[in-house]
Amino acid sequence: MPLRLYELAIADGSSISPYVWRIKYALAHKGLAYESVPLGFTEIPAACGGRYKTVPILEDGSETVCDSWAIADYLDRAYPDRPALFSSLAERAMVRFFDKWLMTAVQPLLFHLYVSDIHGRVRPEDQAYFRQSREQRIGQTLEAFTAVRESWLPVVRKALKPMRLLLTETPFLGGEAPNYADYIALGAFIWAGSVATLPLLEADDTLLPWIERGLDAYGGIGRVNAMPGLVA
Amino acid sequence: MPLRLYELAIADGSSISPYVWRIKYALAHKGLAYESVPLGFTEIPAACGGRYKTVPILEDGSETVCDSWAIADYLDRAYPDRPALFSSLAERAMVRFFDKWLMTAVQPLLFHLYVSDIHGRVRPEDQAYFRQSREQRIGQTLEAFTAVRESWLPVVRKALKPMRLLLTETPFLGGEAPNYADYIALGAFIWAGSVATLPLLEADDTLLPWIERGLDAYGGIGRVNAMPGLVA
Repeated sequence: MPLRLYELAIADGSSISPYVWRIKYALAHKGLAYESVPLGFTEIPAACGGRYKTVPILEDGSETVCDSWAIADYLDRAYPDRPALFSSLAERAMVRFFDKWLMTAVQPLLFHLYVSDIHGRVRPEDQAYFRQSREQRIGQTLEAFTAVRESWLPVVRKALKPMRLLLTETPFLGGEAPNYADYIALGAFIWAGSVATLPLLEADDTLLPWIERGLDAYGGIGRVNAMPGLVA
Repeated sequence: MPLRLYELAIADGSSISPYVWRIKYALAHKGLAYESVPLGFTEIPAACGGRYKTVPILEDGSETVCDSWAIADYLDRAYPDRPALFSSLAERAMVRFFDKWLMTAVQPLLFHLYVSDIHGRVRPEDQAYFRQSREQRIGQTLEAFTAVRESWLPVVRKALKPMRLLLTETPFLGGEAPNYADYIALGAFIWAGSVATLPLLEADDTLLPWIERGLDAYGGIGRVNAMPGLVA
């Protein structure tokens, strides 16, 4: 029985969750085939018997695992003969630091820049839920929240500096080959690039060769989505 | 012949360079004994026949290595039977990301907060050099540069958030045991804490248990310096 991955889909069919993309890359890293189950935002609570509220969800025979980090750890535990996602506890701790940094220093800015664009791209039947849940979180309308979003572009571009500095030295964040930190960061760029109507990166951004290498990896799985908003 | 480590000393004899501290921890990690050679700022150019302008410098028989990262890599190469500083290229790349983050997001703020305090604590014969070289870098007097330094305290405390988030999950940045990322960060805290007249951290900062664990490691080598400025 193949693995089954529950993903989040927008109106054009693109898989959009950055957390799902971490696992799509993790499965490719381990060479594991899987079947995709695309869900809209409002379909998630009904999947898997209503046990989970977010994707990714991975079904592997009788096992069901929710949460991207739990899935990554499950994959290393369940498939120890495949290439490891984490070669040591030290590498895993360092990748978690990378995740904490991205979620603290970059992700809130990307959310600010692109939450309206996501709303415009989700399935029609998901729009009301998306707007209501996000407006509750931010305490204002999407339109008010993103009214001056252009001013955040230089801030997010600057926030990415530590990544640029490392990637002048190594082809991937994980060194000579991509590791889970690459998958975390690629997930964020695929997510933003797939919805953005305001381009995220300048055309001469030194991150771009790394993004290209990442999108090319594992047979180009990252190139399935159109990403009109990645580069100016 | 023992290893010999050239260090940077201030007036009270404390070893003060955060880069030297990385290597003092790295040598302890590998269980290598060494002889310390304390130097003042203005003595560095004359050491080792004038070949190097900064410390740490490590002499190992006929080998002399300058620059903390070059020394760390040398130690793993020259002493492969001792515990590795980097268990894989992936761990090394991730630690370099941590270093880029610290040098980008934290170190400039610490410099801003404490450059005047360093000036006040260096050897008397080093003060004129220290003032002149740092004022040339910042384009103003030390006094003007640090006049409103209190306003930077909340900024640096907030900048440390990704470290706090990881350290709620693992005892060390490197996971269950300290790795080179811990030594990098401990070096920064020892450096700042040894000179600060304005305390860096609040007494309830959740980083403190990790700092205590780090200072206790390897027989408490990090506790040699008095650190009156680490905690309010």
